[in-house]
Amino acid sequence: MTFEITKELIENVIGYVEQKNDTALSELFFDVHHADIAEVIEELPFDEALYIIKLLDSVTTSEVLIDLDEDTREKILEQLTAKEIAEEIGELDTDDAADIISELSEERQGEVMLEIVDEEHAKEIEELLGYDENSAGGLMAKELVKVNENWTVLKCVKEMRAQAEEVTRVHSIYVIDDAGKLKGRLSLKDLLVASTRTPIAEFYIPKVDFVRVNDPAEDVANVMRKYDLEAIPVIDEADILVGRITIDDIVDVIKDEADKDYQMAAGISKDVEANDTIWELTKARLPWLILALFGGFISVSILGGFETAMKTYPELFFFTPLIAAMAGNVGVQSSAIIVQGLANDSLKGSLWKRLLKEVVQSLINGFVLASLLMSAGMLFLGFKIAIGLTVAISLISVIMIASIIGTFVPIILDKRGVDPALATGPFITTSNDIFGILIYFMIAKTILGF
Amino acid sequence: MTFEITKELIENVIGYVEQKNDTALSELFFDVHHADIAEVIEELPFDEALYIIKLLDSVTTSEVLIDLDEDTREKILEQLTAKEIAEEIGELDTDDAADIISELSEERQGEVMLEIVDEEHAKEIEELLGYDENSAGGLMAKELVKVNENWTVLKCVKEMRAQAEEVTRVHSIYVIDDAGKLKGRLSLKDLLVASTRTPIAEFYIPKVDFVRVNDPAEDVANVMRKYDLEAIPVIDEADILVGRITIDDIVDVIKDEADKDYQMAAGISKDVEANDTIWELTKARLPWLILALFGGFISVSILGGFETAMKTYPELFFFTPLIAAMAGNVGVQSSAIIVQGLANDSLKGSLWKRLLKEVVQSLINGFVLASLLMSAGMLFLGFKIAIGLTVAISLISVIMIASIIGTFVPIILDKRGVDPALATGPFITTSNDIFGILIYFMIAKTILGF
Repeated sequence: MTFEITKELIENVIGYVEQKNDTALSELFFDVHHADIAEVIEELPFDEALYIIKLLDSVTTSEVLIDLDEDTREKILEQLTAKEIAEEIGELDTDDAADIISELSEERQGEVMLEIVDEEHAKEIEELLGYDENSAGGLMAKELVKVNENWTVLKCVKEMRAQAEEVTRVHSIYVIDDAGKLKGRLSLKDLLVASTRTPIAEFYIPKVDFVRVNDPAEDVANVMRKYDLEAIPVIDEADILVGRITIDDIVDVIKDEADKDYQMAAGISKDVEANDTIWELTKARLPWLILALFGGFISVSILGGFETAMKTYPELFFFTPLIAAMAGNVGVQSSAIIVQGLANDSLKGSLWKRLLKEVVQSLINGFVLASLLMSAGMLFLGFKIAIGLTVAISLISVIMIASIIGTFVPIILDKRGVDPALATGPFITTSNDIFGILIYFMIAKTILGF
Repeated sequence: MTFEITKELIENVIGYVEQKNDTALSELFFDVHHADIAEVIEELPFDEALYIIKLLDSVTTSEVLIDLDEDTREKILEQLTAKEIAEEIGELDTDDAADIISELSEERQGEVMLEIVDEEHAKEIEELLGYDENSAGGLMAKELVKVNENWTVLKCVKEMRAQAEEVTRVHSIYVIDDAGKLKGRLSLKDLLVASTRTPIAEFYIPKVDFVRVNDPAEDVANVMRKYDLEAIPVIDEADILVGRITIDDIVDVIKDEADKDYQMAAGISKDVEANDTIWELTKARLPWLILALFGGFISVSILGGFETAMKTYPELFFFTPLIAAMAGNVGVQSSAIIVQGLANDSLKGSLWKRLLKEVVQSLINGFVLASLLMSAGMLFLGFKIAIGLTVAISLISVIMIASIIGTFVPIILDKRGVDPALATGPFITTSNDIFGILIYFMIAKTILGF
């Protein structure tokens, strides 16, 4: 790890670009990993970034483009001609190529596709563009090594050599039949040991893990993680081998999925990071805050409705933030456990059992917290028994209802095809705030009779 | 993916165990992936699970043990003798072996180590046990293929064959010097093309990514993800090649780290999941709720201190849950962005610039939200201008302070070596609730003069 991005390095690059010192720039970036070049590009002003992209050869810049942030890539692609983009695309594996093209406008997509020289490559990219980006089809590459079960070892080795040239990492050799259906895989060791005339059919391994082209990306990640796979073949509805997914893409899926869930839980929509512009960050944060404000506004009206109780029981109003906070916290806990269970596909047993479990848990938590609150409130703040009891009973009820809501909302969202992680964000805190306050005052009204 | 765990399957297994029908059980689990067997074991009552583990051969069960939940594994290991554990360990790669042993009590660790037959294996495991489990040393395995730069191609191929037998997936051939220092790597293609007498020194690739044995696991994950590596060599302080980390272990690091951050943000300590017992779930949840209760209690006392204002301005108290909720939401957003920036090592620029950015953002958000609140409050709830203005100014101040706290707390925690993700949980919501309410009433007091 010798390459480090320093302030001096960035200043040097900017200086060289100003002097149009292409030799110095080429030397500077010689043999530097594309992921590092991408990081330098992100730090440069736009014109300098574009200059570097245009200067370096397309073998390098095509990989750099893949490593860039979506925003930076979009801006750079806007400044390139369809022909220039096609050249970059020509250097990339089909999956990366399709990812880049899919980010262009439909009109430009057509222009770029027409400029791709290798027709086979263009056809494969076209096919990949047809799949949902969050499915196995959207993740897979067309590059893989496959052999026909009817071939002999000799023919197989010859064909494999030609195919392997286009595949960066071979991982596995897949065996197909004449129709192209996935039949199994081949062990390189077995292949080397077998005599040259033996047909593949005699010794291939019929047991092979695979995913279907329409399987969601998350499922693919779960399978590959569970079985520690470095690559998995993808088949279509007719069992035809259509592509291959490698672990590096899955690492990105896992990371992105986790980042998204975390951001949703924190009330940030869209994929933003600390270095984004103030405008981008505000766009990601403000909608959730407006939702929370709206929720807060409802709680203001609820409290306003109980104004008459204020004269007799002013203490009741001191507890509203506490009740609301507990409802929010409990709800988020319950939701988070369900969201993770759904993501890891580890939710087992019936809904009723799960409900019972939540109720028992919230009763335990509720009783512990309510007794703490009651004793502290009466000891240190000198509250009357009636008030203490009201708050305690309300706290237990609010905790129970918040945990039931927290459990069911993500399950319902998931069943309706909405990302359940939505439930752990300000959405659940806000609605639980409202429910909490409402329940609290309704119980208080019943007990104290105002 | 043909193996599926159904209720019938579990019932069948339990039935076979009761009948002690070992043939049927062996047949049932024949050729089933260890990850699937582990899932079946998790679903079985404990005695049946133990029976299966003792029945199947140790090549299979050792891998099953690795795939089990830590709790289940612990319970099973308690029922095995030191000799039985040593047998399982003997089948595992050094990294997995060390992981299992590290979970035993110190006394049992010693017993098991003495029972391991292969002395070389035992020594390597012993070495791995010395590293922090969250460092490169804690992740790496000793199994790898390395060749000396002074060897000829012929000697190299011979030695590699012997070494490769012990390594599940070769990935890379590392080149070392006589002292054992990492010098570079070897391309298999170059090796095959070179004449048998050529020394390795003449054609190995000196450019190789590596990590240091004490690098944190998270850094290793970031490097491997950035450079799309499937394996990375690990060197010690003296540059000696001591091990190798493969991508499947990194996938688990990324997943675990993400799960932990997410759970912390949701106020769940410890690694629990939906299927854990009520007691385990309560242990993970209750401490945070007690913290939140304690915070809520402080806000009750603050509000109690302003009781006199209630007679003149009852409306002020209706807004406390709203102000507290906004402070909590804004704080969590700010923290989450910083926590992710720290985790991805993408926080650049000075603290002052970051502070300025937060202040500008919170001013924008604050003004938008305050105007919404003020107009809605005066239109629909008929609040007086003085009250509306007080709430609006408070909201802007609270948002600004909450976002500053949210930005700095994770940075400070990180600098002190505490996991910054702690900051996004109930910790920040609770303290921001308190600060929010306090600021609100102090501003109200100044403006309205009570």
